[in-house]
Amino acid sequence: MISPFKFASIPQIIFGAGKRNELYNIIPKFGNEVLFVIGGSSLYQSGKWNEMTAMLENKAINFSSISISSEPSPRLIDDTVAKFRNKNLKLIVAIGGGSVIDAGKAVSAMLTKNESIKNYLEGVGNKIHDGKKIPYIAIPTTSGTGSEATKNAVITEVGPKGFKKSLRHDNLVPNMAIIDPELMISCPQSVSAACGMDAFTQLLESYISSKASLMTDALAFSGMKYLSENILLACSDGASDVNVRSGMAYGSLMSGITLANAGLGIVHGLASPIGGIFKIPHGVVCGTLLFEATKMNIEILQKLGSKGKLSLRKHAQIGALLSGKYQLEESKINEYCMKLIKTLEKWTNELEIDRLGKYGIEFKDVDKIVERAELKNNPANLSKENIKDIVLNRI
Amino acid sequence: MISPFKFASIPQIIFGAGKRNELYNIIPKFGNEVLFVIGGSSLYQSGKWNEMTAMLENKAINFSSISISSEPSPRLIDDTVAKFRNKNLKLIVAIGGGSVIDAGKAVSAMLTKNESIKNYLEGVGNKIHDGKKIPYIAIPTTSGTGSEATKNAVITEVGPKGFKKSLRHDNLVPNMAIIDPELMISCPQSVSAACGMDAFTQLLESYISSKASLMTDALAFSGMKYLSENILLACSDGASDVNVRSGMAYGSLMSGITLANAGLGIVHGLASPIGGIFKIPHGVVCGTLLFEATKMNIEILQKLGSKGKLSLRKHAQIGALLSGKYQLEESKINEYCMKLIKTLEKWTNELEIDRLGKYGIEFKDVDKIVERAELKNNPANLSKENIKDIVLNRI
Repeated sequence: MISPFKFASIPQIIFGAGKRNELYNIIPKFGNEVLFVIGGSSLYQSGKWNEMTAMLENKAINFSSISISSEPSPRLIDDTVAKFRNKNLKLIVAIGGGSVIDAGKAVSAMLTKNESIKNYLEGVGNKIHDGKKIPYIAIPTTSGTGSEATKNAVITEVGPKGFKKSLRHDNLVPNMAIIDPELMISCPQSVSAACGMDAFTQLLESYISSKASLMTDALAFSGMKYLSENILLACSDGASDVNVRSGMAYGSLMSGITLANAGLGIVHGLASPIGGIFKIPHGVVCGTLLFEATKMNIEILQKLGSKGKLSLRKHAQIGALLSGKYQLEESKINEYCMKLIKTLEKWTNELEIDRLGKYGIEFKDVDKIVERAELKNNPANLSKENIKDIVLNRI
Repeated sequence: MISPFKFASIPQIIFGAGKRNELYNIIPKFGNEVLFVIGGSSLYQSGKWNEMTAMLENKAINFSSISISSEPSPRLIDDTVAKFRNKNLKLIVAIGGGSVIDAGKAVSAMLTKNESIKNYLEGVGNKIHDGKKIPYIAIPTTSGTGSEATKNAVITEVGPKGFKKSLRHDNLVPNMAIIDPELMISCPQSVSAACGMDAFTQLLESYISSKASLMTDALAFSGMKYLSENILLACSDGASDVNVRSGMAYGSLMSGITLANAGLGIVHGLASPIGGIFKIPHGVVCGTLLFEATKMNIEILQKLGSKGKLSLRKHAQIGALLSGKYQLEESKINEYCMKLIKTLEKWTNELEIDRLGKYGIEFKDVDKIVERAELKNNPANLSKENIKDIVLNRI
């Protein structure tokens, strides 16, 4: 039986080394007044931003730019929108990591409104965004959040009453995503590692999600194949190999499409409160929790007997993939589940993903985190105790 | 190395038994003036159209309807558009087979223009459609063309100077596709067979296409898995089993997405001239040619040695899938290619797909057909002689 499913729109995708250069022919189709939202450093340092501005000037494209150096706060979005509201912008283009892509998405959506983004954030404000926006093109420079393909922008307010909440609407999927693996070559090792683990988390969580469909399964499986083949290389010898970066970029793109349509699990259900209360990169939270969360999910599913079988089978399918096998032998379900756990543990260690303690999170904070955690579409119905154990093991 | 690729938008998808009923809540979001484009018979006979009109009246939705009983001609589209141009339509909904879905798509696009569709057909007119249209929802009742997910509408003029050409624009992808397998249960056996073979042709041709990408591969493979498991059942004992129809509907939907993004091969390159010159259902043309075309492709690729290896491997991968194996053993490439050929031959026979001769096509017509045939994105560079042999063997 094929379960019913919904699948939202995806952006037009242009994927390939050097494809960022198609931008100059695409912009005029939208209009000649563009705002670029760009990242803090690597785009400058690599010389690519200079190249791009020269091309934009050469093509007589009117553009402004703003630079974002941290996860976007409501204040940052509101201030940016206030500054550009009367500029008659025809297009927003964001080039950067997940924070930059989310910031660009939020700015494009809020330019059509006359009030603070806080009013429209899920669980914060009480208004629902109507999806009206200035057209938006996302160009990621990390392989991580997959935000170039999603319909939400994550906005963060850090502090004791902090939050990490989404502005969300089907129509906020970017009009276009240009995925150019050359832009990822300058991404530092620790960022590539955390982002890569985040992307794998998104793929695995959407694959085992209670909301998964055949379509998301096909794309998540394909994404995990290429991401798993390249993640260690991207953070070592292969960091400047465009083929390796292509594999990571493809996996990340798939993760955005699948999470938007199948949802996520306990790792992301913990990432919201942790990232809201503490200043810690989202990729590190996901990367550090994935191995323990997967181990816990498998343990709980194994205890369920026949009820947990279908979901265990999906975990095992990925264990098989990580063993280079596409065929899942029924007799080896436990063996392949173990392979999945062991591989994630190995990646966490080899990629030197930080523990939570490094960012000031202590044992005493765990109850507060667990209290605010959400299961989302996690395949196993974890108890508060189960969730606490996941976090405790990564302090 | 991941080859560069582009992937166009897809419609919002709602998939599942009974999901047609979501339509009544969706229509008001577009507006209250709807044109339904529906098929000739089975929707009436099954009583489903009566059910639907009762619901529409109950919800006080203003609607008109037109019925289409053959592949849409330029005249049919022009006349329909003339009739409804001043009716201030807010939404077009088509419910039917591929011809009906294509007709709805063409009407939605031509309502924004003041001239004949002929002017905008590829290879016929010299104008390019700008993508402006009345919003459009496609609800297929056959599992065949996948038109609910494509950006083109095929328009047919039958006769000595006949053609089968497309109106095409990225923006003509339907806004939404509602795939309800219950609507396919009333589809007659011969139609299910021809449409199912068309969908499999589309999946296989896009999978082996020179324009295939990782994304289209993942979706085409998934579609072929479910289509191959259900095609014989859908035309026999399983015809009224909604699970069987779901598998077919899913395969067909995937075929639309993959053909729109990866292109097609020689079977569809022959379907255009054959369907233009002779009155023969599109599904029959594809279904009847697929086995011979695949055999020819494999023979030619085998002669290429190492140059044909990658493409042969993909043919073999599907042969393996049809043997219930996901793992492709390198030593078995020829064996699995043979399995693919043999399975297609078996389906052609068991599904009693008509030969071309039944529709008045004779040996003397073959040169004329081959002359107009296109290779499209066929993986093997077939000669005119090769193409002629494919057709001759199916007269």
